[in-house]
Amino acid sequence: MSLDATLSKIDSDLSASIERLMEFLRIPSISTDPAFKKDVDKAADWLVDDLKSIGIDAKKHPTPGHPMVVGHVGDDADAPHVLFYGHYDVQPVDPLDLWNRDPFDPALEETEHGQVIRGRGSSDDKGQLMTFVEACRAWKAVNGKLPCRITFFFEGEEESGSPSLVPFLEANKEELKADLALVCDTSMVSRGVPSIASQLRGMLKDEFTIIGPRIDLHSGHYGGPGLNPLREISRIVASFYDEETGRVAVEGFYEGVHEVPAEQLRQWENCGFDEAEYLNSVGYTQPHGENGYSTLEQQWARPTLEINGLWGGYNGAGSKTVIPSQAHCKITCRLVGEMDPDKLRDKIRKHVEDRLSPDAKVVWDNDLEGSPASVMNLDRPEFEAARAALSDEWGREAVFTGMGGSIPVVGYFNTVLGLDSMLVGYANDDDAIHSPNEKYDVKSFHKGIRSWARILDALSR
Amino acid sequence: MSLDATLSKIDSDLSASIERLMEFLRIPSISTDPAFKKDVDKAADWLVDDLKSIGIDAKKHPTPGHPMVVGHVGDDADAPHVLFYGHYDVQPVDPLDLWNRDPFDPALEETEHGQVIRGRGSSDDKGQLMTFVEACRAWKAVNGKLPCRITFFFEGEEESGSPSLVPFLEANKEELKADLALVCDTSMVSRGVPSIASQLRGMLKDEFTIIGPRIDLHSGHYGGPGLNPLREISRIVASFYDEETGRVAVEGFYEGVHEVPAEQLRQWENCGFDEAEYLNSVGYTQPHGENGYSTLEQQWARPTLEINGLWGGYNGAGSKTVIPSQAHCKITCRLVGEMDPDKLRDKIRKHVEDRLSPDAKVVWDNDLEGSPASVMNLDRPEFEAARAALSDEWGREAVFTGMGGSIPVVGYFNTVLGLDSMLVGYANDDDAIHSPNEKYDVKSFHKGIRSWARILDALSR
Repeated sequence: MSLDATLSKIDSDLSASIERLMEFLRIPSISTDPAFKKDVDKAADWLVDDLKSIGIDAKKHPTPGHPMVVGHVGDDADAPHVLFYGHYDVQPVDPLDLWNRDPFDPALEETEHGQVIRGRGSSDDKGQLMTFVEACRAWKAVNGKLPCRITFFFEGEEESGSPSLVPFLEANKEELKADLALVCDTSMVSRGVPSIASQLRGMLKDEFTIIGPRIDLHSGHYGGPGLNPLREISRIVASFYDEETGRVAVEGFYEGVHEVPAEQLRQWENCGFDEAEYLNSVGYTQPHGENGYSTLEQQWARPTLEINGLWGGYNGAGSKTVIPSQAHCKITCRLVGEMDPDKLRDKIRKHVEDRLSPDAKVVWDNDLEGSPASVMNLDRPEFEAARAALSDEWGREAVFTGMGGSIPVVGYFNTVLGLDSMLVGYANDDDAIHSPNEKYDVKSFHKGIRSWARILDALSR
Repeated sequence: MSLDATLSKIDSDLSASIERLMEFLRIPSISTDPAFKKDVDKAADWLVDDLKSIGIDAKKHPTPGHPMVVGHVGDDADAPHVLFYGHYDVQPVDPLDLWNRDPFDPALEETEHGQVIRGRGSSDDKGQLMTFVEACRAWKAVNGKLPCRITFFFEGEEESGSPSLVPFLEANKEELKADLALVCDTSMVSRGVPSIASQLRGMLKDEFTIIGPRIDLHSGHYGGPGLNPLREISRIVASFYDEETGRVAVEGFYEGVHEVPAEQLRQWENCGFDEAEYLNSVGYTQPHGENGYSTLEQQWARPTLEINGLWGGYNGAGSKTVIPSQAHCKITCRLVGEMDPDKLRDKIRKHVEDRLSPDAKVVWDNDLEGSPASVMNLDRPEFEAARAALSDEWGREAVFTGMGGSIPVVGYFNTVLGLDSMLVGYANDDDAIHSPNEKYDVKSFHKGIRSWARILDALSR
C-alpha cells in the first residue's frame, strides 16, 4: 500500500474532486426548512451514489426526519475500524441579498489568501466531509483497498438540532460499531496550522417571552403608568451580566467550571492562534469576555450566556407610539467542564423569575435541549499518529486545541456507542459559515484530502 | 334657532347617521401605506361630497402627500367663527389575524357596555369627526343655518406624521382664519364623564442602531470574546431608567418639567377617572411610573422615555447560534411643561454615546421630529360655555382633564395660525384605537352629536 502514490493520485485528481464537490454543493439541502425536504433527500442520494462509485456498500436509511447515510468498506479484522461522521445538510441562506452570487451556484474564486470554493455548505460541512471521501477514493483507486475498515455515517439534520440522531444511534448500535470516530467539521486554529480539537464546549438553549399588558397599548394613553415589556426584558437581560468583571451574573452559573491547567494554557498560547486576525477580521479591537482570561481561554474554556435574538414592538418604517404586550428573547449558553445543562437551565429561569416586576409574567419555551462539554482522551495512540501525519502534510507541528463551538454528536457517540472521537478539520475562521458568502479554501480541500490519506495510513500501522 | 328641535332631529336621524358613518368606515384610508393611496383619496372625496350635501362649500386640496379637505359655511359676521379639525386617515390594521372581523367591514355589535360600531377608524377618528358633521347636518336641516361660522379642516396624514400639514397651514392662513379651533380626537376621562382636554403632552421620536461586529458571527467561535450588540443595547436601554425611583436616568431629562399645582391636582383627583378600570382592563394591578406621583399625574403631567420597538438577531422558529452584527431600538418620549424636544434629543443621544463599549458604534435615524407640550387657555369664555353644554347633555359635571397623548396639530394651529384649540371628544379607553377590534360606542356617537349641537348653540350666545 503506497501512501506516496495515493498522494500523487489526489494531486492529479484534484480538478475532478472539486467538480464532484460542486455537484454536491448545487443541491440546496437546507434541513431547517420543510420547503427543501426533497433537496435534502436528493443530497443523501448523491452521497450514496458517490460512495457506491468508490465501491463502498452504502445505503440511505429513512428516519422520521431526514435520512441517514451509512456505508461500509473493508473486512480485514486486523485493520483498525474507524467511523467517519459528517453532515450533508446546510444552513439556511438568509439574508440572501448579502450574497454576491447564488449560494447554490458554487464557483471557484480568487481571494487574497488564494483560490476558494464559494457556496453554501462549501466549508460546513460538504467540503470538509468530501476531504475524507476523496481520500478514500484515491486510496482505493491506487491500492485496491483501504488501510482501515471504515464505516461512513452521515446525517442530514445537524443544522436543525439532529432530532433523529439519538434514536438512530440507539437502534443501530451493532452496525455503527467501531474503534474510534473521526469527525471533519472543525477549523484550524489559524490559517495553515493543522489542528485536532481536544475539547468542545457544551450547549444549552432556552427562550422566554415577557408579557406585560394584555394587549398592545397606546403610549400616550398608557405611557407612564404602563409597564413596558421591552424595558422589562432589557433590564433582565442586562442583569445577566456583571459589567465590571465581564462575568455572567446568574447565581451558580460557574459551578462545574475549572481553571485551565498552566501546562495546557502554555500549549494553547503557543499554538499559532492569530489573535489580531481573529478579532480584527470581524471588526473588534479587543476581546470582550471575562476579565483576567486570555482570548483563547474566553473562547475555549469559559462558559457564556449569549443573546441570539431579542425582539418586541414595532420594527417597520417610521415610528409607532406603542407599548407592546410582549417581548421575546432567545438565548444559548456554551458550557465547559462539568456544567450540567439541566441544572443551568433552572438557574437561569430562577434568575429571570426572581427579577420580574409586578404585572410582568414570563413564559418559557419547553422544547429546547442541552448537552454537556466534551474532553477528548488524548492518551489514545491514534491522536499522536494523527498529529504526526498532519505535521508531515502541513510542514508545521499540528496542535491540540480547544473549540468554541459545540458538536453534540461527539457526546452522543460517547454515551450511546461508547465511542471516542477525533476531530480533525481544515476550515478557516474567515470561511463565513452560517453567514453569507461562505467559502472553503481550495488549499484546505486539497491538503485536507492528503491529510486524511496520511492519517488513515498512520492509523493502520 | 331651536336647540331642542335640533336634538330631536339628531335622535330621529341616528340610524341614518350610523349608516353614513359605516359608508365612510368602509374606505380603507390607511395613510402610512402607499398601497392605499387611492383609498385615502377616496375618503377625502367622500367627505367633500358629504359636506356638500349639507350645503357646505367644500373642496379637496391636493398636497405633496394626501389631500386636505376644507369647507366653509356661514356668513354672519357677528357669529363666532370656529375651525373644526379632524383626520380622515386611519391606522394600519396589523396584526390582522387578531381582528374578529374585517377591519373595513364595519358592523354594530352588542357589548357589556352597550352597542358599539366596530371597525378601523370608528373611534380614531372618523366616528369622532362625524359627531360634529352630523350635528351641523341636523342643525341646518331644522334651522336652515348654523349658529356659528364654521371652517371645516380635515387632513389625511395624522397617522403618518402629517408631513403636509405645516406647509399647508402656512400657505392658507387667510382661508383658515377663525376665532377658535375645535378638535374631536380625544377620549372621555371615564365612561360617561364628558371631558375637555386642557393640556397635551408633547412628543419626541428617535431611533438608533448599535453595530458590533462587521458581520453576524457564530456564537461558538466568537462567544466569549465577541461583543454582542443585543447585550450592549439591553444594557444601554436599562440605563435609561432608575429602577429605584421609576425616573428616567438621562441627565437633564427633567429640565422644564414643573410640579402640578395643588389646586389642579385636586380637580384632577375628583374628575371621575376610574383608576381600577384603566389599569385592570389591560391587565395591570398597579401603575409603574415615577414613585410619588399618582396614576393621573404619571399619565398627564410627567414625561416618559418609551421603547416602542427593540430587535436584533434571530427570531424564527427554534434556535440559531448567532451573535448578530446589529441591534435596533425605536423610542418616543412624551414631553411636558417647557421640555425642549431638540435639546432632549441631544441629551438622549449623549447618554447613549457615553455608554458605548469599545468596538460598539451607534447610528442615529435623522428623519424624526418632535413637538413640545401644549396647555390650553382655560380663561377663554368658550371653555366654560362648552363645559356647561356638555354637563347638560351628559347629566354630570364636565371636567377639564390632562391627556397622555400628543396632538401636534394643536401646537401648529397655535404657532402658524395663532389659534387656540378646544379639545372635546367622546372616545373611551376601551375603544382599542391603534389596536385590533377598534370600536366606538353608539352612545358616544349619539350623545357626541347632541353635545356638539349644544356646544355650537352655547358658543353663539
